[in-house]
Amino acid sequence: MELQLTKVNLTEKFSLFDSHWEPKIVGELNEQYVKIAKLKGEFVWHHHESEDELFMVVKGSLIIKLRDVEIKLNEGEFFIIPRGIEHMPVAENEVHVLMFEPKGTVNTGNTESEKTLNDLKKI
Amino acid sequence: MELQLTKVNLTEKFSLFDSHWEPKIVGELNEQYVKIAKLKGEFVWHHHESEDELFMVVKGSLIIKLRDVEIKLNEGEFFIIPRGIEHMPVAENEVHVLMFEPKGTVNTGNTESEKTLNDLKKI
Repeated sequence: MELQLTKVNLTEKFSLFDSHWEPKIVGELNEQYVKIAKLKGEFVWHHHESEDELFMVVKGSLIIKLRDVEIKLNEGEFFIIPRGIEHMPVAENEVHVLMFEPKGTVNTGNTESEKTLNDLKKI
Repeated sequence: MELQLTKVNLTEKFSLFDSHWEPKIVGELNEQYVKIAKLKGEFVWHHHESEDELFMVVKGSLIIKLRDVEIKLNEGEFFIIPRGIEHMPVAENEVHVLMFEPKGTVNTGNTESEKTLNDLKKI
């Protein structure tokens, strides 16, 4: 791993992009990535075969739909979606989120979609 | 892993304890823990042999001393301390932090101290 001895300011990092549903890498540790993303609208139903995924709301609010229940996250709240559990993030208004997940995690999990991201950028 | 389909509200979790330098587990994913802690004063110099460690400031400010430099973290900022790097957190006033690190991580790393925690609690 490349040594990076600089701190990360989330507000500054969020100011660097406007796109929705395109997570950016802002940190790397223990074979995991810390990512941030702006979300708005509906994502796609998917699950991750072997990765648990954490969503923390930094600004705004986010609904994580599971098949049986909806989890509403406000600022300062997080939710861990265990591997194998189908979910779909939905944001009525733009929301800023931080994610923590293993390096190999694909944003749309098992679902191929136009939202599937193959090139993650570090910012 | 036990399935836990409830969200975590950080403010609520921080209200559950007052002690300093005693991280509590608030989440578990991919063999990593999400922990929170209240810090005040000086910790001990230590490093972690094989774990990178993330500190994010939720409230207040924190200085992470490295041997050559000091990193000052304010709210909404995080820093990843790579494995092997000696560090000492210092908080002039109480600070609330969130940490990500592998499950086996001992708070004082290679250093035995009265601050060494052997029983991590989930809250």
